[in-house]
Formats: sequence, structure tokens, C-alpha cells
Amino acid sequence: MSDAAAWRELFVATDRAGLAALGRAAQRAVDSLDQPHRGPRSSRTPAQLRDAVRALEVCPPEGVALDTVLDELGAAVWAHGVRPLDVACVAHLHPPSVVPAVVSELTIASSNQSMDSWDQSPAATEVELHLMDFLGRRIGLPAESSGVMTSGGTASNVLGLTLARSWAAAELGVDVLRSGLPEEARQWRFVASDQAHFSIQRAAAQLGLGRDAVVTVATDERGAMAMDALDATLDDLAAQGRRVIAVCATAGTTDLGAIDPLLAIAERARGIGAWFHVDAAVAGAFVMSEELRARVRGLELADSVTIDFHKLWWQPFNASALMVRDVARFDLLRVRSNYLDRGDELDGMVNLVGRSLDTSRRFDAAKVMASLRTIGQRTFAAMLEHLVALNDYAASVIVDHDDFALVAPPSSVSCVFDAPHYAAHDLRRVQQGLLADGSMVLGRTEIHSRPALKFTFMNPLTTREDVDQLVALVARRLPRRSTAHEDDRG
Amino acid sequence: MSDAAAWRELFVATDRAGLAALGRAAQRAVDSLDQPHRGPRSSRTPAQLRDAVRALEVCPPEGVALDTVLDELGAAVWAHGVRPLDVACVAHLHPPSVVPAVVSELTIASSNQSMDSWDQSPAATEVELHLMDFLGRRIGLPAESSGVMTSGGTASNVLGLTLARSWAAAELGVDVLRSGLPEEARQWRFVASDQAHFSIQRAAAQLGLGRDAVVTVATDERGAMAMDALDATLDDLAAQGRRVIAVCATAGTTDLGAIDPLLAIAERARGIGAWFHVDAAVAGAFVMSEELRARVRGLELADSVTIDFHKLWWQPFNASALMVRDVARFDLLRVRSNYLDRGDELDGMVNLVGRSLDTSRRFDAAKVMASLRTIGQRTFAAMLEHLVALNDYAASVIVDHDDFALVAPPSSVSCVFDAPHYAAHDLRRVQQGLLADGSMVLGRTEIHSRPALKFTFMNPLTTREDVDQLVALVARRLPRRSTAHEDDRG
Repeated sequence: MSDAAAWRELFVATDRAGLAALGRAAQRAVDSLDQPHRGPRSSRTPAQLRDAVRALEVCPPEGVALDTVLDELGAAVWAHGVRPLDVACVAHLHPPSVVPAVVSELTIASSNQSMDSWDQSPAATEVELHLMDFLGRRIGLPAESSGVMTSGGTASNVLGLTLARSWAAAELGVDVLRSGLPEEARQWRFVASDQAHFSIQRAAAQLGLGRDAVVTVATDERGAMAMDALDATLDDLAAQGRRVIAVCATAGTTDLGAIDPLLAIAERARGIGAWFHVDAAVAGAFVMSEELRARVRGLELADSVTIDFHKLWWQPFNASALMVRDVARFDLLRVRSNYLDRGDELDGMVNLVGRSLDTSRRFDAAKVMASLRTIGQRTFAAMLEHLVALNDYAASVIVDHDDFALVAPPSSVSCVFDAPHYAAHDLRRVQQGLLADGSMVLGRTEIHSRPALKFTFMNPLTTREDVDQLVALVARRLPRRSTAHEDDRG
Repeated sequence: MSDAAAWRELFVATDRAGLAALGRAAQRAVDSLDQPHRGPRSSRTPAQLRDAVRALEVCPPEGVALDTVLDELGAAVWAHGVRPLDVACVAHLHPPSVVPAVVSELTIASSNQSMDSWDQSPAATEVELHLMDFLGRRIGLPAESSGVMTSGGTASNVLGLTLARSWAAAELGVDVLRSGLPEEARQWRFVASDQAHFSIQRAAAQLGLGRDAVVTVATDERGAMAMDALDATLDDLAAQGRRVIAVCATAGTTDLGAIDPLLAIAERARGIGAWFHVDAAVAGAFVMSEELRARVRGLELADSVTIDFHKLWWQPFNASALMVRDVARFDLLRVRSNYLDRGDELDGMVNLVGRSLDTSRRFDAAKVMASLRTIGQRTFAAMLEHLVALNDYAASVIVDHDDFALVAPPSSVSCVFDAPHYAAHDLRRVQQGLLADGSMVLGRTEIHSRPALKFTFMNPLTTREDVDQLVALVARRLPRRSTAHEDDRG
């Protein structure tokens, strides 16, 4: 084959021949997922996985046939991944993917629109704006709300708090993005619960305020922010002359799924003139269910909201959004670029770079829209409600079990428990043993320094019988009681 | 169909029936790219695109059949995207995608590994580490170098400069991520050329230093940092008591493709104890060619390097990397998480969250590895060398053309030119007119306040004849000379 012909074969072309070749290659990629191993993951050790991967040269002098490459990756990588659709894959907020999203990745990558400027994504820009409008309406934000897709909940939280910082600085007449943190910033604080995601701390660190600028508020028995503790904290901070620039509530904490009392917190934030950010990465999906949406009442009062489509919207990574209650808030971020977003484009050409902390950005909105349109409102809500009910059921099984105790009442889709007659190292051994032999990917965490195990239910195909089996499987891995060392706990 | 059966159909299953369904849906997605329109983009206006997109309800009460949804998006969105493979799509560093990467997106999204913790990405973690090692060797970094995949060049630059900030603070005994910017930070400066990407300013803004903390250095006629200007700047800053915490060189500027003199800059950075960051988003790929790698000599001396696989490595968005010369540098970033990266895992379980500013993170390394292994070293280098030669040719055509003048000699794959007998608004009209009627997606920018047009050659299938036609097409759009207003330029 001539070089030119070989090169031509490498690139995705949308003529008939090109699409036929793409279709064949896509089928081969699908075939590469057909691996003998079943279960949540294989039992290969890190060293074995490393050896198999390192046996494949990244870029050999001459290329290897694509079919071969796909087969090799199938055997070395896809066979030994974690399988989020397996009912025993319950460690994290790590969803199985829906088909409409997965096949949309093909079109997203083929078309390769970049969301920073209209002339790299003309129709795609409209899709992202349409999706953001839909989300704003669902949340109940004002008509002038909008948002932007980001690479994840952490990025969305960082963006929300970046806006909050600019907002606080603007009040002082300072453009913090231009001139840096003013002297007053030493008094700036973010307030969040002690169960908030660590990305709130990360945002404070990134923004130059430091993790110590995040003041944590005690939580109640469910893991939701305690209002009396919040009031006491705000009083303390006021007495110390601190300026709370953002109150960060969580709708669905990472471990307990707890939902902070958003309405009450919104009121307190308004009372002190603070930006009200809600990290609804987990429970934001509840706005899609008439049954569940009451749990996130107050979300519509937020200045900014983090929504992770790659959690309870069953999207493959990455797909997150940061919503703002007024699209004009993004002006706090805007930078002019000579080659993007010059401001002298034709009517209606929106350059989304002005809303984002990224420049080049993939068209993840397409997969979200394809998925929601395929799933439909009724089915989406039913799957979500099933998971919440399933989690309630899991909690009831834990409560009834001799070996286990619930760490907190269930709030969303995660169930955190411990084994009171056992030591911390027993819990660690159970979780690591299940992971090592590939029989379960179980969560392990700490709640207020109390070591715990965790089920996170992301897969709507999971049944109550599956839950019974998961609990039984964990129980069987506990050592015989005589080996427990009570004094070793904690 | 029962609810359970309908739900089951929605999720990607890797049994035979599930994969057969996925294969069928993937084929339909490929078919949805078969649209009548040809050329770099359709001539639809923003308003027309908006109407077509808004006619599709994001989430109707009952779901729509997947085949229908894919067809609808084909007609409303994929038909009216920008086509990076079209030879007249030359505005940005916006590449056509290679087939191995595109079909890998299917497996990436199906498998849905998350790169934050080993128990969400066991084999995938090894692939990312393997790719980072490969890249480190190619760049010529020390054996202890490593890196992490990010969502783009902006994110990579922000990560590199976040590390630089922590490094500078650590010298003062300050953990800036914990306690925020110290008083000394008022004197901290980043130094970069006046042609560096705006994400250097964005990073400074994000980090609390402010854009004004970026001191820009004048560039030479090619757009590369002028060493005498750098020396003068460093002397000035020293005299003013400023502390330069990072010198940021660019290997391949966004507009001119200029490559700063890395060896000399590395020496200056070392001399003043500053972190040496290189934004090699554009020309980093040159390490893959024996012919071109001399142009990026000095990259191996960097403390951190940004590499964008979604530029001259022909990967679909997103795929970027931030490399560090010693993996231990990532300790500057590390945060402990109760539920990820607890530090008490089994031997060999690496949790990449400790290297990243993200938490959940998609397995983009898979598509890069599949692509490089399929393309092979020789072909990769040949395609890259072709593009650089093509750009040199384009520059020669511009030089020989009566209407056009080169703004700077060519350095990489972009050719920036203006039309000396015409006004700025003429250039704007030419570019916007070509975009509006869909005949060319041409770049437009400003170099030192001089309005200019830009070709960026990302498509190795483009020929010299194509270049001739592109230049002729732009020339034909210029108004008759009598309409030019010399006093309106600039």
C-alpha cells in the first residue's frame, strides 16, 4: 500500500467507504469486549496486570494491524477491568453505562467538535446550550440560568467556587483574576459540612485560599449538615471577622448520600451575602423524579450547582455540568482571546470558552442528550426510584444482620455499615480480600474516624436477591469471632 | 416489554446478547454520520441550527427508539458540524481523528473505568502508567519521570503551574495547598512569552496570583521568546525584588507555532531557581520524529511538560498529559481521601487520584495507546513531517502572492498572513463570509495587534494542490482593491 493510501485508512472519513471501514472497526472493538472472565473484576494482581500491559510496545517502529491491537487490548485490558454492570461492583459512585451514550461516543469522537468556539462546534454549541436549559428548568432555576459541561464534579465545584471568589472580590471592586487575591482574602472562608467532598478543599487550595479556609460544619446522624452547628459556625466566623464568601451544601454526600437541608442553608447564605453553591453531583439526578425531587428542595435557590451526569444519569466518564442561576455570572470569568471568542463574530455565534476553565473541550453533551431522549422521563425516574428503594432495603438487611451495624440511616444510594464485633483491620482484610480475588468491589471508608464498609448502588438491574447475596458474601469473609481484637478498633 | 427487560436493554452488557446489541447500535451510530452535506461545514446559520436542535425534546415523557434518536442527531447535529478532515477546515489546532482512537472510545465508554482509584481501573491504571513512561522516554526525561492524563492543554498547564506554586511555597516551608498563599506570594511571578497561550494567564488567575503576575517577554520575528528580552526581564524583576517561581516556555505557540529556545531558557530558569514548565501542547509531537525532534531540544530539561494528544497526535478530544521530571513531584499535590487512596491497599495498587486535579477521570490513555500502536513510529513521523513541509509550502505560496504577506516565518504547522492592501474589516469579512457559507473554516487572529488570517494544517491527507486552492479561495474573497480603506487598518 502506498503511504497516502495507508494514511487515508487511518483517518475517520464520512464518505461511504470511510463509514464502512469505521463500522467494521467499531464491530471489532465491540468484539474485543467479549472476554471469558465474568464477575466484577478478574483476580489478576497488580504485578500480573502490569506485565501483560508492558508486554505491548506503545509505539513500535511499524504499526500493528488495528484488529490485532484491539484484540490485544481486549485480552490485556478489557478482560481485567472493573465491570460496573456487575451487581458485585458496589464500591463507588461508578455507574454502568447506557448504550445510547456509549455509541454516541463514536459519533462524538468521529466528528470531534471542540466546544470552545462556535467555528469548531456550530450545531454542538446549540446542543450544549439546549441541554443546559433543560437542566436549569428541571432544577427550577430562573429562566436566565445556564451552565457549561465540565470534566467532572471536582472541576464543576472548582468552577463554582472560582465564580464565588470573583463575586466576593468584585464586591470590593477587585478583579481577582487580574490582580490576584486582595489582602482581605485572608479573612475569606468557604463553609461546608464535614461530609462534603474533598474537592471543596481542593478548590480552596487551588484558588490560593488553602484548605484551611474551608470551615467544616458538624453533621447530624444521617450525615447532613446540622443547622444549629451551621448557625454556631457562622456566628463564630462573624465574631472573628471572617467573611464567608461561599456556603457549600451537598446534595448527596460521597459516602452516606446525605442531603443537606438546602432551603435552610440557602436562607443563611442569603442572610450573610454569601454565594450558595450546591454540590449535587450525586443527588442532582433526583430532580428527574417527582417522588424524589422533594429531597433536593432548595436546589433552585443555588447560585451554582454541580451535576454529575456520570453518576446517577448512567453516563460514561466524563460528563458533568456547572449550572449558574444567571448566565451573566460567567462574565466573572471571561477572558478575551485573540484567536477564540474575539467578540466580533456573526450574530448568534456563541463561543463557550467564555464559560469554561477549559479551552478545547469534547462534546459530551451529545451523549447525555442521546441518552435522556432514549430513556425518557418515566423510565429514568423509575430506575432512580428503584435504586433508592434498593438502598433502603440494603439498610434494612444490615440492620437485621447479627454481624453488621448501619453507620447512618440511608439517604440516597449508598449504605455504610460496620461490623461492631470486629476490628478495623478485619474490615480492611474483608474488602481487600474481596477485591484481590475478584469476587466483589466493595467500598471502604471512614465516617468520623469510624472505619466502615460501603455499598453504592448504581446499577438499576440489581435486585433485592442480589443485595441479600452481597451482604451474605461480606459476612462470610469476616474472620471467626475469636480473632477479633476489640482494642484494635478505630 | 416489562420494565426490567426494557432497563436491561439500556445498559451495555458484555454477554453475547449484550455485545450483539451494542454492535448493532454502534453501526447505527456510524450510519448517522452519513449525511448529504460535504465541505468543512454546512451553511446553516446559528438561528437555523438552534431551531433544529431545539425541535428535539431533551427528555420526553416516554423514551424515543434509539435508532430514531441517532438518526435525529445525525440530521440536526452531525450533518452540521465542522469537519476536521475536510482540507478547508484550517482554523484551529483541531485535528481529524484516527480510527483506532475513535473505536477505542466505544470500549472506553463501555468499560467505563475511572482513573482515580485502582479499584475502579486496575488494568487501565497500568496502561496510563505505561503510556506516561513511553512519553517520558520519548521526551528524554529522567527514568523517574512520570505523568498523568488531563482533559486538555489548559488543564495540563494549570496542573504544572500548581506544582510550581507548591514548590516555591515549600522552599519557604509553607504548604500553600493547606494554608493558602503566603505574604511572599505578592512578589511571585510567572514569566512567559507574549505569544504564550492564554491558559498561562488563566492558571495564574486560578491560583490566586492574578493574570498580572504573568510577566510577558517580547518575541522575535518568528514569535519565539527573545533571549535578550528574557534576560532583561529577569534582571528587572530581580531588581524589583520579584521572585520568578516559574519560567514557562512554549514549544509551538497557538498562532505562529513558534518554539521558544528551550535549552537557553532552561539554563536561565535553573540559574534563578525557578520551575521550568514547557507548554508543548502543539510541538510536543515532534519528539516522535528524528527529523523534527531537534526543534524541541531542551524539552528534556523541563520540570513539567504539557503534551496534547488531541492536537498533532490526531486524538479526539480529550487527551492531554502533564509530565513531571520526577514522579515524586506529585507529592506536592497529594491529598488523602477517606474513600480513595487510603494508603493501606495491597501491594502495587496505585491510585492515580494523587497526581490529578480531577477525581473521576476517563480512560483516555487507551485510545492514545491503541492509536500509536496501530500507526507505528515510522508512519507517525512521516505524517508529522508532511504537515510541517506542507506548512512551509503554504508560507512560500503566501510570500509569492500579490495580495498576501506572511506575518512570521513558519515554525510548525500554522501559517499566519495578512493582506497589506486591505483593511482589518476586510479580513474579518473574508473569514466570516467563508465560515457563514461553509466554504472554509479559516483562522483569524492578531499578532502584536496586527489583524491576520491563519491556516493551521492538522490533516496529513492535505496536499500542495489543496494549499494552492485554499490560498486562491481566500484571495477571491478579498474585495476589489478600490474598496480598501488604508486608514481603517489595525
